[in-house]
Amino acid sequence: MHHTLEVRTRGKGLYPCTREVAQWVASTKTETGLLTLFIQHTSASLVIQENADPDVVLDLADFFERLAPENFGYRHDTEGPDDMPAHVKTMVTRPHPFRIDADEPLDSRDRRTYGAGTWQGIYVFEHRSGSQRRSVVLHL
Amino acid sequence: MHHTLEVRTRGKGLYPCTREVAQWVASTKTETGLLTLFIQHTSASLVIQENADPDVVLDLADFFERLAPENFGYRHDTEGPDDMPAHVKTMVTRPHPFRIDADEPLDSRDRRTYGAGTWQGIYVFEHRSGSQRRSVVLHL
Amino acid sequence: MHHTLEVRTRGKGLYPCTREVAQWVASTKTETGLLTLFIQHTSASLVIQENADPDVVLDLADFFERLAPENFGYRHDTEGPDDMPAHVKTMVTRPHPFRIDADEPLDSRDRRTYGAGTWQGIYVFEHRSGSQRRSVVLHL
Repeated sequence: MHHTLEVRTRGKGLYPCTREVAQWVASTKTETGLLTLFIQHTSASLVIQENADPDVVLDLADFFERLAPENFGYRHDTEGPDDMPAHVKTMVTRPHPFRIDADEPLDSRDRRTYGAGTWQGIYVFEHRSGSQRRSVVLHL
Repeated sequence: MHHTLEVRTRGKGLYPCTREVAQWVASTKTETGLLTLFIQHTSASLVIQENADPDVVLDLADFFERLAPENFGYRHDTEGPDDMPAHVKTMVTRPHPFRIDADEPLDSRDRRTYGAGTWQGIYVFEHRSGSQRRSVVLHL
Repeated sequence: MHHTLEVRTRGKGLYPCTREVAQWVASTKTETGLLTLFIQHTSASLVIQENADPDVVLDLADFFERLAPENFGYRHDTEGPDDMPAHVKTMVTRPHPFRIDADEPLDSRDRRTYGAGTWQGIYVFEHRSGSQRRSVVLHL
């Protein structure tokens, strides 16, 4: 089974999408399985990270901004100074498939994400400055 | 088929777990298949790396310590100075599924890991300073 | 279904292999499925990146050269100064499985790679200085 999720972003940062992923998984009535998620872009990433403290995602965004700054002296800058750093950030941050189990909800009121791990959330990590529509493909 | 492996760590560094993974794969009597491994944490990674020279894993640990130092000026430090660097390191080091074949042992006396590649080993890369119990989920 | 592709490299840089992957996928007559690619080495990576502007892959190679320089002071240097940086680069750049669909060609004349995303290409990212033969395993 597969499904494409559209996530709208408004500039650099991490956008949660655990709830949308959990809703689709629930709608498939799957008992257990392997969930593979990937994003069809190379200027935005899909990551699994802690969702307990909102500061974590801000710190992560800061780190990657310093790791791959806009003023690096790239050849490719026709799409703006945020484009090549976006490719670099995508290259070093990739999602991984993980096992889901109907007895361990992917998203719940206390924000725990079982399967991926307790207290984990799924995020689209937007690397471009402008607004974008990102396609996330789910495969179960 | 799936299985959860518990790996105990005692501070930062790479802890081999190829043997434990190989034992479980062998116990399933699988001829060929795709093995997906993931770790249910965002402050420790699961990596596949060279296991021929023990210096390699020390150098890798050093590199990531310099890449994401503890004194970066993170907002999120309530869990200690080693917590945010742990999230960063996890984000840039993710495992990948790989094919296994009963004719190519995952672990052998000469430490070759076929399937993942010759001379490769599977490691839990602990990013926290204290002792931890890490859950590694295997899906075949 | 699985297949091993051999890619020859001649020093550091990104080598496209989308066409070879697409040819094998087409030969399997698969309608839809999940394609998992991995490289059986830890001194070369398999990446999905933009293939519209050839400058992108040059910029990426530059970035990773600066991220993990040869003169870092590694312990492990018996295989040459390019060996440990190769392990580091491999560790931070991993491929991800993605869904393929017979209606969305993986490779076409206009160089679009559907499935992985429009305008994306699959590359072997060679991290060693000398010539190498790299084994890429495809699993569908």
